[in-house]
Amino acid sequence: MDQAAVQRIAPRSGVAFTLDRGQRLTVIDPTGEQVADLVAYNRHDTGEVISSGRTLDYASRIYLTTGDPLYSNRSNVLLRIVEDTVGRHDFLLTPCSADTFRIIYGDTDPHRGCFGNLAAALAPYGIAPDAIPVAFNCFMNVPIDGATGALTVEPPLSRAGDRIVFVAETDLIIGLTACSALQSNNGSFKPIDYRVEG
Amino acid sequence: MDQAAVQRIAPRSGVAFTLDRGQRLTVIDPTGEQVADLVAYNRHDTGEVISSGRTLDYASRIYLTTGDPLYSNRSNVLLRIVEDTVGRHDFLLTPCSADTFRIIYGDTDPHRGCFGNLAAALAPYGIAPDAIPVAFNCFMNVPIDGATGALTVEPPLSRAGDRIVFVAETDLIIGLTACSALQSNNGSFKPIDYRVEG
Repeated sequence: MDQAAVQRIAPRSGVAFTLDRGQRLTVIDPTGEQVADLVAYNRHDTGEVISSGRTLDYASRIYLTTGDPLYSNRSNVLLRIVEDTVGRHDFLLTPCSADTFRIIYGDTDPHRGCFGNLAAALAPYGIAPDAIPVAFNCFMNVPIDGATGALTVEPPLSRAGDRIVFVAETDLIIGLTACSALQSNNGSFKPIDYRVEG
Repeated sequence: MDQAAVQRIAPRSGVAFTLDRGQRLTVIDPTGEQVADLVAYNRHDTGEVISSGRTLDYASRIYLTTGDPLYSNRSNVLLRIVEDTVGRHDFLLTPCSADTFRIIYGDTDPHRGCFGNLAAALAPYGIAPDAIPVAFNCFMNVPIDGATGALTVEPPLSRAGDRIVFVAETDLIIGLTACSALQSNNGSFKPIDYRVEG
C-alpha cells in the first residue's frame, strides 16, 4: 500500500487503523467546516487510551495545537500535534451517539453517530464500546463562557484543505470519523480525508 | 450502622462504599478550601461509569450545580446534584496521581495522589486503575479563560461546613477522596466529611 495515499471517510461514517511509532497521521477537512473525532489506544495494551483529563491538566489549557502532546490515562504521550492550520479543536465532549441525538436533538429514530461508528470500527481490534473515551475532536469549535461555564457548539473554523498532523509516540490503534452531528458541522455532513506517512 | 453518621476521610486519603438507588450522599468540606474527587460506577455492571464528556455535552455547561445530572458513558443518569452551597466544582480534570506530582510539581518521590487512593479503595470492588475516569471534583475551582482556553487551579470557594448533596439514581459504587494536590487545596491538606442517608 502506498502509505502516502489519501483515504476518504464518507460522511457520517468512521474507520479504524493502526499507526506505528514515528508515523505521521494527517487529518484533512477537504471541504471545510467538518469535524473528525479521533481516539487512540496503545496497540500492545488497549487498556491504555487517550485521556482528556490528563492532557488538559498537564497542558493547563483546554485548546490544544502544534507542539501539544496527547497523554494517555497512564500519563504516557500517545500522540503529539506537529502541525495545525486551524488552531481550534475540542477535547471536552464525547463522540455523538444515538443517545446524543435522542437527548439533544429529540430524534426518535436516531443515527448511531460517531460513537456507533467508532464502536463498529474498533470492534475487530477487541475494543469494547465502554472503552471509547472523550475523543480529540479535530476542527470542533466549542467556545466556553469563562464567567458562566456555558459551552456552545459553533461552526468549525476549518476551511477546505485545512489539516492537523499528529506523530505517533508509540504503536497505536486509531479510530477516526467524519462527524455525524449537524450542530458540530454547521448543518451539513461532509467527508474527512486522512493520510498515514513514514 | 447509623447511615446518617458523618464519616471522615483523612487528608490525602480516599474511600469507596456503596450507595443504593434513592440514597443521598452529602459531601462536606469541614474546614474549607478542600477538594473531594468523586467517581461513581453502576454497581451491577462496573463498565458503566460517570462520564464528563456526556454530562457536559448534555448540560451545555462545564460548571454543574443543583439540579444537574451526572451521566454515565452509556448516557444514563447515575447521580443528580440536589443541593450545593458552593456552586463551583470541576469536571474536566483527572484525579491527581504520582504522575501528576512528577509532571506538574517535579516531585522525585511522589505521593500516589487521589488516583492511587481511589485505585486502592476501588480494588476490592473489582475496579481496575484504568477504569478511573475524569472525576467530579467537588469544590475544585478551575476557571477557564474563554479567549485562550487557559485553565488555572485556584483555591476552592468552599468555606467550613459547605456541602454538595447527590441522590443516587441507580445502585452505585462510589469512590471519594480528600484531595492530595497542594495547588487544588490552597496549599494545605485537610479532611473531607461525608454522610449517606435514606
